[in-house]
Order: sequence, then C-alpha cells, then structure tokens
Amino acid sequence: MNETTLKSILNSVARGETSIENALQTLKHLSVEDIGYAHIDHHRSLRKGFPEVIFGQNKSVDQIIGIMERMNQWEKIILVTRIDPDKAATVISRFKDAEYHDDAQMIYLAKDTIPVTGKGTILIISAGTSDIPVAKEAFLTAKAMGNDVETVFDVGVAGIHRLFSHKKMIESASVLIVVAGMEGALPSVVAGLVDRPVIAVPTSVGYGSSFGGLTALLSMLNSCSSNIAVVNIDNGFGAGYMAAMINRV
Amino acid sequence: MNETTLKSILNSVARGETSIENALQTLKHLSVEDIGYAHIDHHRSLRKGFPEVIFGQNKSVDQIIGIMERMNQWEKIILVTRIDPDKAATVISRFKDAEYHDDAQMIYLAKDTIPVTGKGTILIISAGTSDIPVAKEAFLTAKAMGNDVETVFDVGVAGIHRLFSHKKMIESASVLIVVAGMEGALPSVVAGLVDRPVIAVPTSVGYGSSFGGLTALLSMLNSCSSNIAVVNIDNGFGAGYMAAMINRV
Amino acid sequence: MNETTLKSILNSVARGETSIENALQTLKHLSVEDIGYAHIDHHRSLRKGFPEVIFGQNKSVDQIIGIMERMNQWEKIILVTRIDPDKAATVISRFKDAEYHDDAQMIYLAKDTIPVTGKGTILIISAGTSDIPVAKEAFLTAKAMGNDVETVFDVGVAGIHRLFSHKKMIESASVLIVVAGMEGALPSVVAGLVDRPVIAVPTSVGYGSSFGGLTALLSMLNSCSSNIAVVNIDNGFGAGYMAAMINRV
Amino acid sequence: MNETTLKSILNSVARGETSIENALQTLKHLSVEDIGYAHIDHHRSLRKGFPEVIFGQNKSVDQIIGIMERMNQWEKIILVTRIDPDKAATVISRFKDAEYHDDAQMIYLAKDTIPVTGKGTILIISAGTSDIPVAKEAFLTAKAMGNDVETVFDVGVAGIHRLFSHKKMIESASVLIVVAGMEGALPSVVAGLVDRPVIAVPTSVGYGSSFGGLTALLSMLNSCSSNIAVVNIDNGFGAGYMAAMINRV
Amino acid sequence: MNETTLKSILNSVARGETSIENALQTLKHLSVEDIGYAHIDHHRSLRKGFPEVIFGQNKSVDQIIGIMERMNQWEKIILVTRIDPDKAATVISRFKDAEYHDDAQMIYLAKDTIPVTGKGTILIISAGTSDIPVAKEAFLTAKAMGNDVETVFDVGVAGIHRLFSHKKMIESASVLIVVAGMEGALPSVVAGLVDRPVIAVPTSVGYGSSFGGLTALLSMLNSCSSNIAVVNIDNGFGAGYMAAMINRV
Amino acid sequence: MNETTLKSILNSVARGETSIENALQTLKHLSVEDIGYAHIDHHRSLRKGFPEVIFGQNKSVDQIIGIMERMNQWEKIILVTRIDPDKAATVISRFKDAEYHDDAQMIYLAKDTIPVTGKGTILIISAGTSDIPVAKEAFLTAKAMGNDVETVFDVGVAGIHRLFSHKKMIESASVLIVVAGMEGALPSVVAGLVDRPVIAVPTSVGYGSSFGGLTALLSMLNSCSSNIAVVNIDNGFGAGYMAAMINRV
Amino acid sequence: MNETTLKSILNSVARGETSIENALQTLKHLSVEDIGYAHIDHHRSLRKGFPEVIFGQNKSVDQIIGIMERMNQWEKIILVTRIDPDKAATVISRFKDAEYHDDAQMIYLAKDTIPVTGKGTILIISAGTSDIPVAKEAFLTAKAMGNDVETVFDVGVAGIHRLFSHKKMIESASVLIVVAGMEGALPSVVAGLVDRPVIAVPTSVGYGSSFGGLTALLSMLNSCSSNIAVVNIDNGFGAGYMAAMINRV
Amino acid sequence: MNETTLKSILNSVARGETSIENALQTLKHLSVEDIGYAHIDHHRSLRKGFPEVIFGQNKSVDQIIGIMERMNQWEKIILVTRIDPDKAATVISRFKDAEYHDDAQMIYLAKDTIPVTGKGTILIISAGTSDIPVAKEAFLTAKAMGNDVETVFDVGVAGIHRLFSHKKMIESASVLIVVAGMEGALPSVVAGLVDRPVIAVPTSVGYGSSFGGLTALLSMLNSCSSNIAVVNIDNGFGAGYMAAMINRV
Repeated sequence: MNETTLKSILNSVARGETSIENALQTLKHLSVEDIGYAHIDHHRSLRKGFPEVIFGQNKSVDQIIGIMERMNQWEKIILVTRIDPDKAATVISRFKDAEYHDDAQMIYLAKDTIPVTGKGTILIISAGTSDIPVAKEAFLTAKAMGNDVETVFDVGVAGIHRLFSHKKMIESASVLIVVAGMEGALPSVVAGLVDRPVIAVPTSVGYGSSFGGLTALLSMLNSCSSNIAVVNIDNGFGAGYMAAMINRV
Repeated sequence: MNETTLKSILNSVARGETSIENALQTLKHLSVEDIGYAHIDHHRSLRKGFPEVIFGQNKSVDQIIGIMERMNQWEKIILVTRIDPDKAATVISRFKDAEYHDDAQMIYLAKDTIPVTGKGTILIISAGTSDIPVAKEAFLTAKAMGNDVETVFDVGVAGIHRLFSHKKMIESASVLIVVAGMEGALPSVVAGLVDRPVIAVPTSVGYGSSFGGLTALLSMLNSCSSNIAVVNIDNGFGAGYMAAMINRV
Repeated sequence: MNETTLKSILNSVARGETSIENALQTLKHLSVEDIGYAHIDHHRSLRKGFPEVIFGQNKSVDQIIGIMERMNQWEKIILVTRIDPDKAATVISRFKDAEYHDDAQMIYLAKDTIPVTGKGTILIISAGTSDIPVAKEAFLTAKAMGNDVETVFDVGVAGIHRLFSHKKMIESASVLIVVAGMEGALPSVVAGLVDRPVIAVPTSVGYGSSFGGLTALLSMLNSCSSNIAVVNIDNGFGAGYMAAMINRV
Repeated sequence: MNETTLKSILNSVARGETSIENALQTLKHLSVEDIGYAHIDHHRSLRKGFPEVIFGQNKSVDQIIGIMERMNQWEKIILVTRIDPDKAATVISRFKDAEYHDDAQMIYLAKDTIPVTGKGTILIISAGTSDIPVAKEAFLTAKAMGNDVETVFDVGVAGIHRLFSHKKMIESASVLIVVAGMEGALPSVVAGLVDRPVIAVPTSVGYGSSFGGLTALLSMLNSCSSNIAVVNIDNGFGAGYMAAMINRV
Repeated sequence: MNETTLKSILNSVARGETSIENALQTLKHLSVEDIGYAHIDHHRSLRKGFPEVIFGQNKSVDQIIGIMERMNQWEKIILVTRIDPDKAATVISRFKDAEYHDDAQMIYLAKDTIPVTGKGTILIISAGTSDIPVAKEAFLTAKAMGNDVETVFDVGVAGIHRLFSHKKMIESASVLIVVAGMEGALPSVVAGLVDRPVIAVPTSVGYGSSFGGLTALLSMLNSCSSNIAVVNIDNGFGAGYMAAMINRV
Repeated sequence: MNETTLKSILNSVARGETSIENALQTLKHLSVEDIGYAHIDHHRSLRKGFPEVIFGQNKSVDQIIGIMERMNQWEKIILVTRIDPDKAATVISRFKDAEYHDDAQMIYLAKDTIPVTGKGTILIISAGTSDIPVAKEAFLTAKAMGNDVETVFDVGVAGIHRLFSHKKMIESASVLIVVAGMEGALPSVVAGLVDRPVIAVPTSVGYGSSFGGLTALLSMLNSCSSNIAVVNIDNGFGAGYMAAMINRV
Repeated sequence: MNETTLKSILNSVARGETSIENALQTLKHLSVEDIGYAHIDHHRSLRKGFPEVIFGQNKSVDQIIGIMERMNQWEKIILVTRIDPDKAATVISRFKDAEYHDDAQMIYLAKDTIPVTGKGTILIISAGTSDIPVAKEAFLTAKAMGNDVETVFDVGVAGIHRLFSHKKMIESASVLIVVAGMEGALPSVVAGLVDRPVIAVPTSVGYGSSFGGLTALLSMLNSCSSNIAVVNIDNGFGAGYMAAMINRV
Repeated sequence: MNETTLKSILNSVARGETSIENALQTLKHLSVEDIGYAHIDHHRSLRKGFPEVIFGQNKSVDQIIGIMERMNQWEKIILVTRIDPDKAATVISRFKDAEYHDDAQMIYLAKDTIPVTGKGTILIISAGTSDIPVAKEAFLTAKAMGNDVETVFDVGVAGIHRLFSHKKMIESASVLIVVAGMEGALPSVVAGLVDRPVIAVPTSVGYGSSFGGLTALLSMLNSCSSNIAVVNIDNGFGAGYMAAMINRV
C-alpha cells in the first residue's frame, strides 16, 4: 500500500463514496496482517517506499501464494526471490501479470509500467558470464524500484582492456553494482576509476578454495578502494535494492 | 590537486604569469609521482574528488612524512588513518595545521575550513560506548569530505527504546552509518525503520566467539533488511568515505 | 518407565497379583537394556522426568522400530526427532497412536493426553516464516513435556513493530524461545524487553555467508543482552527441552 | 532505579515532602540518560529487575567512572565486568563500597547486603583449576542478583569419580552452571545426571587446537544431553545472569 | 606378499622346482608394480606386516578390480574401504571369497581364516547407534590384522551409567578404540578410567555446528586425559590399523 | 587469433587479395567481441600466446557453443574445462575435431597437430590413483600449449620407494607438476630432490578433515622446500598453464 | 601414591608399627583431596600407573606449589608442564630435587632414579631445529614414565636423505613420536617405513597459513599412512604419555 | 659446498697437495652433518644449486651461529630469514661479510660478488608501500641466487594507471613476482597483461577481515588469470627462490 492508494481511500471517504465502516475495515489491515505463518508488513511501502519482498527459499508454494494474495490487494508490484522453476510454475499460474525470470530465479508481478523515479543511471557490471544470474537479480530489483539500469557482462580483470572499452558508460553512471566470483577483484578496479558509490556483490562462482564465494566476499571487504560497500554472497537482490536507495538520496 | 588548483595553474599560464616551462614541470607530477617507496596518485583528487588517504599502519614515520610532503604541495586536505600516538606525535610536529585525533587514531590536516557540499545529513549511530573510536573515524572522514554529520552513541538493541528516542533524527538523515560490535544487530533494526541507505560497520568490540569482529561482520552481511551494505571490520574510514560518495549522488 | 509405572508394579507384587519372579523379570530391564545396536536407558524417565528421545537421523528404520518397541512397554510418551517422511511412514504404520509432524520432521507417540505440569507459559517466537519448522520442533517437545506453549511467527527485526504488537504476550511468558536464521538478531531484541530467560535457537535459514546457520549462532552467542543462552543450529528439540526444564524450576 | 526507589519518590510527592518540580526533575532521567559517550538505561532495573552492568573492556577509566556516578544516584548495586587491575584501582578509589575481585576481573559495588530472592540453589562447577576465574565471575553475578550459590572446582572428566563424590550437591541444585575449557565435556556428563537446566560456559583454557575456547564452545553446543544451553566463551557473567533469571521463574 | 610366500619361492628355487628365470620374473614384481593408474606396493606386506589397503572412494570399478587382481596373486587378505554398494556388487562378483559389509562400506577378501597374533583384546566402544558403521570399519580392519576384538555400542555420556555397566570389559582390554560424533566427549571419559592407550575416532554424526565431525575431532584433540591419540573423522579403518599395530608392540 | 593468422590477413591485404573493407571488418573483432553474455578476448592469443580457455562450470550449453563458434573462426585450439559429460555431448556434436576427455572433464578442439615449442619436459606426478583426473587436466593443457609431457601416477609418500624408482625421470624434467590430495606431502618431498620449479596442485581427494582439499592446499603452501608454488584445489588446468609458461622462459 | 607406597602402609599396620587410626588418616586422602581450587586425584597413580601431571598454564604459582605439596607426600615423580621460567624459578626454589627444563618449559621432580619398565625403545624424531622444544617435552615425559628414549632432530622432508641416514634406529624402535610444524609431512613418510605405531605431533612452528600449527595438524590427520594417530598442536607431553602407554601393552 | 669447491678438493688430492686422509675427513661431512640440534645438509648446494637457507624464527642465537659456522666452511653465500634485529646484531658481529637488512629481516653473508646466471630479468611489483618488506625479502633472495632483479612499488589496483605507467618494464620481464596484501587483486591484473609466469605473494598487510593475509592468499589462489602460482603469506623468500628456479629453466 503506497501513499497513492492510501490517499485514494481517504478521498473516497471525504467524498462520501466509501462509508467509514468500510474504510476502517480496509485500513485496519494496513499495518501488520497476521496470517499465522506470516506477519505481512503492509506498512512497509509507506515506511520504506517499496513493499516487502518475499524470500522464496524455504517457503512452501502455499505460503508464497497466501502471502501474495494478501499483498496483491494493496500493492502495485510484488517480487519473490530465490524461487526455483518448479515452485514458480505453480505460483505464476495463479496470478495474471506474474512472470518468472529463470536466470534470476525471481517472480516479478507488476500491475502497471513502473515509472522511472531514480535520479541517475545504475550500471551493473559482471566479471564473468557465470555471474550473470546474480547480476540479473540486481537488474530486476533496481528496475522494479523505478530506475534506469544498464549492464556490461564478462569484463573481468584477466583481460582488463575489456573493462576499459566501456569507460564512458562507467564514468557516467550514478551508482555501480559490480558482481564477481573467484578472486572478486573487479569491484576494486572499477571503484578506482570512478567517484561514485560502488556496491560489490560476491558470487559463489568458482571451485576449491573459492569456498562458495567466501574468497570473493573477503576480497571485496578488504578493497584498497574506499568507495565500496559489500552485500552477501549471491545477493543480487540486496545490491539492486541498496543501489535504488542510493539513487534516490 | 583538485580542479580549482588545476584551473589556477592554467589561468596563470594563460595570463603569462607562469612560463610554459614551469607549468610543465608542475603538471608532469600531476598524474603519478614515484618516490621509490610510493607512487603518489596526485590525479586522484581530480578523478575521485578527494585526494589519496594515507594508510598509516605498517608504514614508517619517514614514509608517512615523505608522502605528506609531496601531497602537501597540491592538496588542501590530507588524512592519515590507523596511526598510533607515538608515530603521530613525530608526524604532526612537522606539519602546521595537522592535528591528531587519538580516539580515531587519525591525522587530519586541513588548510582551510571545508565547505559543506554533501546534500543531506549523514547520521552516525554506535551500538556501544566501546564502538565510538570507529564511529569517530567515520565522522572525521565524512566531515573532511564536506558533509553535515551528526552522531548518536550507545543505543544498542539490549535496550531498544534508547534508539527510538532518536527517531526524528534517524528519519531525517539522508545516509546512515551504523557501527556495532558483538552480535552486530543494530544496523538491521535501524535499516528497518528508514528508506535510506545504511552503511553497516562491524567492530572488533567483544570477546570469545566475537572473533575480532567476524561475528558482527557476518551478522550484518546476512541482514534481513535490504537497504544495507557492509564495510570491513573497524573500517570507519571506508564507511565515512562511502557515505560521502552517496551523499553526493 | 516413570514413577507411576514403577509403583504399580510394586503394588501389584504387594497385593500378590504379580509373582516375584515376574516382577524381577520386568525390573531387571529397568536400568539399561542392551539390544546390540543400542543401550536403551529405561532409567532416564526416573532420573530426568522424561524418557530418552530417539535421534532419527543416521538410524535405520529397523533400529528405530526396535528401540520404540522396547520403550513402548514402559513409557507413555515417545518422541523421534529428525526423521524424514519416508522412514516415518514405515515407522508410524507399526505403532498406533504414533503421528508424524512433517514440518518438524518428528514422530510423536502419546498414549494419553499429557497433563500440564509446567508452571508458566512458554512462548516461542520465530523471526521468519522459514524458521517455523524449527519452532514447531520446540513446540512439540515442550508440549510433550507438559507445558502451556504459545507461538508468534514471522516478527523479525526488519519490521520491529510486528514484534511490539505482541508485547503483552511477550511480557507474560515465563520462558521464551526465540528462533531466527540469517543475522539472528531477534533474540537480543526480545531479551532486552523481558526479565525472563530466553533460549535462542539459530536456524540454517539463509544463504551465502550465513554458512548454514553459523552466522546466526555466533550472533546469538555474542548478544549484548544477558538473559540469553543458546542451543545448536536448528535444535528446536533442545530448546523445547531446556525451556521445559526451566519451567519446572 | 528499582521499584522501591520509585515508590519512595512518589510517596514523598504524595506526602507533600517533595515538590512536583523536583520529582519531575528526578524522574525525567529515569528512562534513558544521554551523557554523550553513553546512553544510561536507568529504566532497566524496573524492566529487567537488575540495573545495567558495565562492560569494562574497551572503555576508558573516565567513561567507567562517569557512568558509575550517574548510576550510583539510583542503583543499590553496580557491577563492572572485564576491567583489568590498573583501571580498577583508579575506579574503586572513587567509590566507597566498591571492591575489586581480581580473579574475576570485576568491580562489585553494593550499598547494602543483597537479600536472597532466588528460589533454589545455583551450583557452579568447574572442570579445572584454570577455569576458576570464569566461574568466579558467574558466582559474583548470581550472588549480586540475590541467589544462594555454591561451588565445586576441578572435577573434570579425566577423573570422573571426583565429580561423583559431589553427587548429592549436584542433585539438589535447582540450576547448574558448568564451566570448562579444553574439550568442554563436563557439561554433557553433568546434564546427564540431573533433571535441571544446565548453563554451559566454555573457557579459553587450553592451547593449540582449543582455538581460544572454540573447541569447548562447539563441544557444548553439540551435547548429546538435552537440558543444556550455552553462553559465549569466558562469559561467566552471562551464565550467572541467566541462572539468576531461571532461578526466579 | 608376506614372508611365507617369499620363502616358498626361494625354497622352490633351492629345490630346483622353479627355474631361476621364472623366479626372477616373479620377484621383479615384488617391490612395486606399475600398472599405469597405480603403483602397487607388493613390498608392503614384508615391510609393514600387512598388504596395501585399497581406498575405494574416487576410484573406478575397473581400477579397483585391476588392483585386486594383481594383489590377489600374492596376498592372503585384501581390504577395500569406502566403496559404495553399487560399485561393490560388481567387484565382489569377480572374486570368490570376497564379501561386502554394507554398514562399514568395506570389501573383505580373506583366503583363509586369519590367525590371532595380537597380544591382548582390542575393545571398540561407540557413543551412539549412529556411530556403528565407523566402529564396524575399525572392527573388520582389526580382525583382518589378526586380533581379538570386542564391541560395546551406544554408551554415550548422556547416560554415563551405561558405560560403567561394562567396566570389567573396559579394564581388561589392552587397546581401546572409542568412536563418537556430536560433542565427542566419550574418549576423554573412557581414557580417564584405564591405563591403556585409547584411539579416539570422531564421526560425522550430528548436525548444525557439529560441522561434519569437526567438533568431535577438536574435542578429542583437546582431551584432558593424556592416553589418547586421534585419527581422521570417520576413519574407522585407521583406528583399527593403529590399534593392531599397538597390540603387536 | 595468433600472430600467424594476423600476418596472413595483412599479407592478403598487401597482395590485394583482400579488400581493405573486408580486412577491417575482420580485424575490428580482434580485440574484444561483445556477444551480450560474454566479452570474447580475441586479443589474448596475441598477448598471452594462447587463446582464452572456456570455464565450462555454471555456463549453459548455448553459451559455451556461442563462445566456441566465435573463437573457432580465429583460433587453432580451443579448450573447455570443467564441463560434465551431458553438456559435453551436445557441445562436441557441433564441432568436428572436438573431443571430450571424461576423466579430465575437458573438451579439446585442435585443428592441427600442435608443434612442441616448450624447451624441456614437463613431468606430472600424482600421489594417488584418485588424483589422476586432476593430473590429466594438467596434462592436456600442457600438451595443448606445445610441450613434451610425461606422467608418473600413484607414488605417494606412504611408500616413498615408489617415487625413488623414477628418480631419473624426475631429475631430467625441466618443470614438475605434483598433484596430491589428503595430506598433500608429496610436492615437498619431490621439491627436495630437484633444482627445478615445482607446481603443487592440491586435490579434493580425501574425507573428513581433508575439508575438500583445504588440508592439502595448506600443506603445500607451508612446504619446507622452497622451489614450490601452489595453485587452487583441483586446478590441473592452471598448473598445466603455469608449467607451460615456465617452460618457455 | 603407587602400589608400593600403599603396600608399605598396609604392611606397617600389619606389623603393628602404625596404628589403625593413623593409617586411616593417611588413606582417607587417597582417593580425591579437595583443596578448594583443586581436587587432587591421588588415586590416579593406582588407576593409571602414573600420577596426575600439573598443567601449569593459567595456574598461579601459589596454586602450583599447593598442589605439589600435597602430591609430594605420596608420589615419587611430579611433572609440571607449560610453566614459564619466571613462575618456575619460584616453584623449584621450594622443592629440592625439582629441576626446570627451559626448552620444554617443564618442571621435573623425581625422588629416585626411574627404573626402565617400558618394553622397547621410544624414538622421537623432529622435522626441524625449531620443533625441538616440543620433542623435549615428549622426551622428558616418556623418560619419567620409565622408558628408553632416543632422539633424532632436524631431518625434515626437504632433504629426505637426512632421515634415511638413521634408518636402522628407525626400524628398531618399538614406538615412534614424530614432531613437525609447517606442512607436517614427516610423520607420513616415517610411518610408511615402519610397521610400528607412530604418534604424530604437530607444532606451531611456521608462519602465515600455518595458522599456529593447524596446517600441520590437518596434514597429519589426513596421512595416507595408516599407522598414525595424532595429538594436539605442541602437545609433546601427550605424545610422550601415549607412547609410554603403548610401550607397556 | 658447490661443484667448484668439490672440484678444487679433488684437484688438490690429484696434485698430491692434500693427503687422502685429509680429503676424506673433509668429504665425509659433505652429505649431512649432525650437530645435535640440526642436520646440516651440505649436499644441498650440489643437489639444488644453492645452499640450505636458515629459517631464523624460533631458533636461538646460538643455534643460528652454530649452523652458520659449519656452513661457512664450505659455502660462498649464507642467508638467514625471519631474524629480528636483536638476534641479528649478535649474529652479524660474529661473521665478517655478514650484513643485516632490517626491512626484510634477513642476514646476507656473501664472500664474493655473486655472478648473474639467471637468463632474464625478474621483476618484483608491490601493491602498496606496506608490502615492501616482503618484496625486499624476495629481492635479496633472487639477487643472492644470481639474477637481475628490478622493482616497482606501490602500484595497487585502487589507481590502476600507476601500474600501466610501467608497462614496458612489465612486458620485458621473464618472471614476475607480485606482492600484495588486503584484497590481493594485483597479481590477477598483472598476469592478465603478460605471457610470463607470475609468482603471487600474499602479505599480512591489512586489518579486520584480512585475517593476517588469508584474504589475499585466497584471492590469489582463485585468480581468473591462469599464469599464476602462489606461495605462503609473507613468504618473500620462497617467491624469490621459485622465481630464480624458473629463471634458470
């Protein structure tokens, strides 16, 4: 429930089109709705400018559908992250407008076109082809939150000239998300080139002593560049969300 | 060397006050000056809007002084981080305007008052009294980069009402830095209250299984709030720098 | 074998209804029964007020059934933890009264209704919907041990007002179990609100640097609240057991 | 500020002995007092039945004294933990009634004899002589919170008969704290003997792969006994606090 | 190839029953036979009193059969460890006398009854039912190496009286193998009771912070009893082998 | 695209056989070709003497084929590493000359016989039979890069005389690759015997506290021999590549 | 108190030289003596053939002296391990016959020459000069327990021929202790040469990724030789004790 | 003892200038000299082309001097690594020609100028000023082994243009050593630019989650560039040694 929805209810009451009884009924669910297995935070769109996002992993299909049904009454956009194709197929069959992005393992349900409200462009860079699914999760999230988003994929440090060939795009972005697995060196290099905030996303791409992304994570946390902050391994969603927050400041 | 200094050299040449010979001599150091033990990146103020910051740990007093002397010719502000009181005493005796902040273990050399150029207010919150030194490092860095900065200390989650008593200040900040050791829970709670980017800084405050800040670090990386990104343990400097970058977007 | 069963045997002997021969035969198994692959501790109900609980993981169906058959002769309640649905189906088909709770992955065999003997109410709080299975394991265990148990699910710190809407229930509990994955911050916040013992249960919910629950575990061990003690990752059973012990003190 | 203090202020107002002006002045500090480097939680004694305890590590002598001075106006008991002898000497010279326990590294300031309000006896057992300092921290904390506390030291599993010689004391305790370093096996054995809650405290006693207490911590978290919950390494204070909470249930 | 086989070849030559040509052909394989994917160490039975044991994990069925065929010409006993049922079925179909023990995941091929040559009795104790597979691997290995071996299973420290009921057997063993998962406390307790060497075997039984047996391993390495040495997690084979070596000293 | 290809294009232009238009078209892809999901670094063969190698893990079959198609226009040799048999079957059906080595999980596409350009012999030694797949990956890589390569398998330190029987081959190699899992001791021993560089490759062969190769990795990094450097766990490819680089120095 | 002492008391009573009163007084301390900070296990010499050994680390000088004074009444040999030179100086000044070995950091108090009761020779091998202190601790312990002990120092795998020059001594030992830091490879090589039990002792010698001996420890636990068992890092005492136990079997 | 020394002894015997008796006396120490606390490997210069290097850490001054005295009779160059200034002062006072390099913490004793025998130039690059001590250790080692060595310091990835300004030197080196702490990204970038082997040296420079160099180590092991192999944290000596070996291939 964002401010627009709220205002329209109040206007409707003001105009006598909605009885106070009905409006009350509607608004009392506004803050937190307890449906047993979940406390849905309807107030979040008002407080944080974007509704709760459903973390699909470990939730049953029924739980996901149940939460979406409640949210669907109030929200214009619903995201479900970390949902595998099997569970997603059942879920999207229940909601028109819902689409599944299988690289990002994400359900995206938008009732209208989302207007661009972010100030500048968010640029998402991936070190390798294998990092693209995480980059896509960031892309979809930032898009859903009303931003212009651009992408450059597979420009890791083993051939640094690949990166430099996109220098203009890099220098004109207002926020950058850099996604990398293995040694996770790319965010340091990118951050050294710009005077903009860089969100570094380690991925679990690699093997052996990459330890499921731990190496990339540690590498990014210890960057010798200072305009970097880091999110969890494979957390494309968090990076996209944080970048959107920054792009509104 | 920031844009102002660069322009004044070029103007001086244009006006014939400086010979081309002299200007060349000056500018050829502009990019990178190799002094044997260091490559000073004079270009950084132009590229990133703020000069290189000297990481004091592991450097000798002579090395620090040597680097500062070269930077001092071009820059209006010089910061040295992670320098202990003994080394700092020798260093500041050599530079007028240099002052040492012993809680933050930082040297601060500003030739003029730094004008505020950041858009909103940066708020720095610490969970405990013991986290203040790291918070101070963030404070001094963000100040040096031209920001309005406010602080609230010792409002950790063991008594959450202490935090809520500062709700107004929290909601009006444009970027928040939250510093916490031990279980590192505070950034999650703060981020849940605002629609602004939160930079989380884990500290090494704690004992036993806090493992020198690792617990707080992991906790922050796994936050269930999404408007959070994390910097290295005790990296107040990086948090202040990142917040300043965001406050300019 | 609890005290009631023991007394009824002795009474039966006293009344001449059971020969000494038969009683001896019965009682000689009382302490420890060695069935080759297991030493069944029949004495435990006397010593600890609750019979041995069967840890299902790594045990074969035959082993579980074998142990249950021996216990079933003496005990009024039998619990099997960490048993997957396939193995459970075979097991419960052999024991009437046995029921399987598939969210908690637990078999529950109670011959009678269990009387409430615990003094106050045990409240179980989960941070997320995904933590419910662990919370359910705690719930069933505490119930089986004779306690009034209540639950509040999905009230994590990303929207702290969800927690506060249950303040009354929280303040009236005599023991609290708080279950959380990811950053594991909820127990610290809850413990800060009450003057009661809090059992913190980390769960393996999360990904990347949650490291299978390690992050939540470390976070809880380093809580800045002091009325907290912690059990193993996903150990809902242990938390329910410990809470029951406390509720009897 | 506990309930007694609060009542006496209100009575004084009721009797006209204190002006409303003065009472207001007094009470407005009641909730949280912000002294710059600390937010003192005066409300805690009301909310949790025991005042805030000062974590001495990483705090300066001046900060500790400053906090104690404010607390001293309202509280009957003040504890400072993890304070080394040098800092403690300065601090206790400023407060009559303050005494320093150098094995537990704790300052103890009690204005009156503390009445016993806990229901049963808390028994503290240590595995070795080297674990005594941690056990003492638990002892002093539980004492300060109004409990009968007994101790048995150096009865580790290498000579298990030493433990059994205290069987009576063990079986009559209402809550047990078991402190052990190295392999941390003692709490499992003790918990197997009783039907009471056991708080396990790992210590950093050991060397090599004891990893500063990590081994004992992990051992205790994985106990095959179920009536156990664990606190941080060397956290005698937390164990004493938790035991006191349990002893009141 | 043990000493008996070697002597019989030499005798055969001495008696003129075998030509020098043939004997040479035979003996030249004696030391090391290179079959491309393996260097078979035929000399090992002479040097170490027991032939090479085949580590089945990661080897293909063809490789295992190939190695066994060569060994089968010279050795009276062949063991294959860590071989799953599918691979084992194919392998044992090729060698008469070969039998598969599916709890221990081990192939055992003995041409004759193995005479007992070890001096005393090796006693194998397991903490739980779930630890039996590892205990069985130790059992089969020690048996194959010519020892009297006895077993006691499921006598962990949660009910320590179960252990004490076998005191006589424990005190009369010459070497003890103690197998335990979870907190791994049993070896410390057993070693405290005897003046004999104890081989401690940690198992991967457990969950959460047992970290696949790491906790039990660390626990055993830090035992406060001194007559303990430790082998790798789940390494029943190594424990049986080491015990056999000791039983011959 | 290596120097030969480049020269032939230029010659063709010089001879008027290719129009400048066409040559331009050809050469503009030379540096980096962006195909959306990948930036193909055609320049690499010129810069590094060997084309980019495709890391198959985490890439889809379509992505691998797409990249190979572009490379196939310019390169004489293409390698794909870490590709499982299913994906490989589809890929090699699309490229004649492509062959799949299923022990090394590698696709090898060479248009011509590769001439030997390396100076000396590269010797690859494996500690066990189970380490052969990693050794084979190194073998194929070094072969593809134009080297004489020899192998000795299964000569680990448990029977050190197996190694010594190959002393001549060991002493005559110019570079050695030593592959070992478990305790990873073999590279130290080999390096002690020669005055040549040794590339140590830890493998994930082992169980329990081998932690997926971490133990072997750490062991090799701490070698008391000095002519050793280490690559990632199971990184046969990197070892072969590095050895080839050394063999050209 | 060993059997000899016990018999002499009983004989003295039998001969009427000691009153029953006095003998009782003497014997009642025999089992466990509680001196507040320690439970002295006087029974241990009877049960385990060697008295309790005092772990000096973390104990105060007064505690060590107090324990020694009680033990001194009954025991013929007292060992204190891990005691630094300062504390040791005070302690040995109080006991004639006590001597301090500063390489092993051990106090050794033997009233008589210790007769050799072990069956064969214990051989202690160190990989480097830096490992000697740990080897010496093993040496003194095994000596004190009545064994012939020999030593070979600094024969690590970087020059394996140094080891082979002692082949005879190695092959004639009945138990071997092998002490190594860094990569910890030596025990595997030694164990491959003999058919005797090898106790492997990792040391903290090394730097960087030796992680205080963790690398050597893991290496030894994963040995491809099977006649190896491992003790804690730097635990020379435990190795000597275990070897002595084995040498008596 | 290198080949030259050996030949001169043999020539001297041939010419009758040395008696066979004396020559024998001399040569019998040649292989390994056992001086109790060390086995000096005089054979190493013959076998490996460079004498044993003394690891100073954990050795006493007397041990170092003792070893040097024996080596000094035969060798033309002696290195001692990881020796602190205090110990070094005593040592160098005993050997003329010995000099101490206090940045590298190394003693260097060369009787003559060392001739350059390496084929190309070894280039040592450091990421930061703080990494110079480790780089210097590599420098001195490679120099001592007869190589042309050049250095470029402080060209880390935060300002990547600093590196590119040395492109010519980088491309003309035959072997490169790249030294970096913190995120350890520099070796990946450098290796991407050249077709030469790169030895990566992680340093312990950094704080917090750099974990004493572990982050840099892991980062380098997971490099997406393939011409990289890694040595232990801070192991400048090993890097210099390995580079020298490569430069001779």
